[in-house]
Amino acid sequence: MLKFTIKKKLEGKLGRVGTLKTSHGIIETPAFVTVGTKATVKALTPEQVKDLGSQVVLANTYHLYLQPGDEILKKAGGLNKFMNWNGPTMTDSGGFQVFSLGAAFGDNVSKIASGESTKVRCRAENGGTNSSCALAKIDEDGVIFRSHIDGSEHRFTPEKSIQIQHNIGADMIFAFDECTSPTAGYKYQKEAMNRTHRWAKRSLDEHKKLNKEKKWVSGAHKNEIALFGIVQGGRFEDLRRESAKVISEMDFDGFGIGGSFSKEDMYTAVGWVNEILPEEKPRHLLGIGEPSDLFGGIENGVDLFDCVAPTRMARNGTIYTLDGKINILNAKFKEDFEPIEKECGCYTCQNYTKAYLSHLFRAKEMQAGTLATIHNLYFINKLVADIRQSILDENFEEFKEKFLSKYYRKADSQ
Amino acid sequence: MLKFTIKKKLEGKLGRVGTLKTSHGIIETPAFVTVGTKATVKALTPEQVKDLGSQVVLANTYHLYLQPGDEILKKAGGLNKFMNWNGPTMTDSGGFQVFSLGAAFGDNVSKIASGESTKVRCRAENGGTNSSCALAKIDEDGVIFRSHIDGSEHRFTPEKSIQIQHNIGADMIFAFDECTSPTAGYKYQKEAMNRTHRWAKRSLDEHKKLNKEKKWVSGAHKNEIALFGIVQGGRFEDLRRESAKVISEMDFDGFGIGGSFSKEDMYTAVGWVNEILPEEKPRHLLGIGEPSDLFGGIENGVDLFDCVAPTRMARNGTIYTLDGKINILNAKFKEDFEPIEKECGCYTCQNYTKAYLSHLFRAKEMQAGTLATIHNLYFINKLVADIRQSILDENFEEFKEKFLSKYYRKADSQ
Repeated sequence: MLKFTIKKKLEGKLGRVGTLKTSHGIIETPAFVTVGTKATVKALTPEQVKDLGSQVVLANTYHLYLQPGDEILKKAGGLNKFMNWNGPTMTDSGGFQVFSLGAAFGDNVSKIASGESTKVRCRAENGGTNSSCALAKIDEDGVIFRSHIDGSEHRFTPEKSIQIQHNIGADMIFAFDECTSPTAGYKYQKEAMNRTHRWAKRSLDEHKKLNKEKKWVSGAHKNEIALFGIVQGGRFEDLRRESAKVISEMDFDGFGIGGSFSKEDMYTAVGWVNEILPEEKPRHLLGIGEPSDLFGGIENGVDLFDCVAPTRMARNGTIYTLDGKINILNAKFKEDFEPIEKECGCYTCQNYTKAYLSHLFRAKEMQAGTLATIHNLYFINKLVADIRQSILDENFEEFKEKFLSKYYRKADSQ
Repeated sequence: MLKFTIKKKLEGKLGRVGTLKTSHGIIETPAFVTVGTKATVKALTPEQVKDLGSQVVLANTYHLYLQPGDEILKKAGGLNKFMNWNGPTMTDSGGFQVFSLGAAFGDNVSKIASGESTKVRCRAENGGTNSSCALAKIDEDGVIFRSHIDGSEHRFTPEKSIQIQHNIGADMIFAFDECTSPTAGYKYQKEAMNRTHRWAKRSLDEHKKLNKEKKWVSGAHKNEIALFGIVQGGRFEDLRRESAKVISEMDFDGFGIGGSFSKEDMYTAVGWVNEILPEEKPRHLLGIGEPSDLFGGIENGVDLFDCVAPTRMARNGTIYTLDGKINILNAKFKEDFEPIEKECGCYTCQNYTKAYLSHLFRAKEMQAGTLATIHNLYFINKLVADIRQSILDENFEEFKEKFLSKYYRKADSQ
């Protein structure tokens, strides 16, 4: 089972440095969790993922349930064995995908707003109004949704999500929650939060039942799966505090901070929550991972982050540097025979020039995504490791100021 | 400069085992040359290419000239440095691509037939008659062609091809030749062959001039580039023998056997040529590399092969096994938790199941191409290494019989 140890606290703030022991090794926290949606970190072998400093991989329950199916992963001996990753693993609950549909259906997210809870929602997949229609229907028991692959109808309940996650067999899994829209009003946020709390209890009950029955014994985990509860409550302080209190009183092994707040409110809201969550258990801020978010999250007590941004941006040619992001397709890089960053220790910067990356992206070669992904993940992992070290060295504020002022100096960076 | 040493000959046949020393290391021959068209072996890092047993990489002059441009490669310090491959390298002359257009424009190849030599040829890119038009015009001086990227017009001459190849700076380069259609008649084949001989002389003169001037000194090669002449002559014995004689009398460092014969005639034609080519220089059979071709080529005196088939098929999910090729998208592999081949030593077979590969291909994940490419290249490299060993062990015929009877046993293999 999970063992979380705090090594050092950030003076006057909620931040802490720790270690999180899992059945597949130790994670030094705070840590960035690398996203491997479909049981593969896009464009990389597990060895490359490990070499660039990733400690833990998160796969998506929604995607793996639909393809290849969680029974396949169970038969394969679980996520680690299936994908050949021998480090710590997580799965999300599938909630974010089935509710927001944002991750599954592209950028034109149409999140659930107040009062819509029991209505069938319909949106066009490609931003138009005449294309095929995706449906999601929420009730007290769970949610009915359509597959983004073949349009088939499926139902997730808290019990079903936990069963699927036990089949996938990651080290750490999440309770099934409702992820609301940032624009949802107080009344709906409260209603959704209360439903999330009831679903948290049902998730926990199902998890304990499955652990007790040792139903899933084909992998290395046996009954060592840890369950994280998720705090919701949107941008409202009283709801966030209430949710933190209710969820922390349940017997979870760790906590996720889910849902939606605007970027500006986020750190404040994370602080409200982490003031209440028990100090001795790990906390995961779901779906967040831009450089500024990492500082804000860590100083407000977050131990784990996951985000598709570094890998997704990499595949589009957007690359992190200490001076902000660059687009490698910019014409000036065609004859730039320097690495992305001379001082960077990543495989890409050690061996390739911007001119070569520029060529690979223009030629649409697969190695373009691989090399850019390696750099971006290395960059984010190293940033989190450096923040961790700055807390140990008691110079967090100086490091933060120095990094952010350089990173956000240019107008084109963010 | 190149140093070719014969270690052992195949009793009663033209085959031989040797070593080919280049400025970037030694190639044990016979060897399969891995294709890295655009200065990248698709889906693999150079370390992966090396680990799976590839000894030498061939890039395409036509592609690199158009994108990113050979001047970029020259400024980068040459092909090896640009792509981070520290082993031996080759480039083709660009002839095949500009003439046949097959490689550049897809499967619907419309090769140059008899009598068409000075006519402007026009073909539809996608097999239809109303799509955009690709042009190639041949005269004594060279060939005018259109870029498959932007339709712009370009001219290759023997001198230009050699200049481009010196800019790219591979260890071994090829004379500019005319690659004819397998259906071309005797008259046209003879005409094209004679033109190829005149172009061979011009290629050699330009090569010697550039080597003498040491024009290209930015890479590790300096003037150590080796030039291979190309034998043509189609399916006609007298032309093949004449071409072998004429080309072998020129001061080339090695020889390519180019052009076109039907599959059945190929080994016979290769034998005609290699009976005449000087024994002490290496021979490369251009664009050939199916398992049966490897046996037939090697026993008829071929030292080097290149072929896109193993990598291209891999990316489409067609995978070599000792029992013939399989299509990993076949439904039966969805729950097949064994590796492609239990006894295979490749990274893919050591770490992944067919069920996982099946999932990656269905989910269109980039690692699908990577893992399948690793297996297919390992398979071909190992096959050539095994054939080499069988010659050293004096059991070539038994090995050939055993391998081919198993590989081609099933109807679905080839």
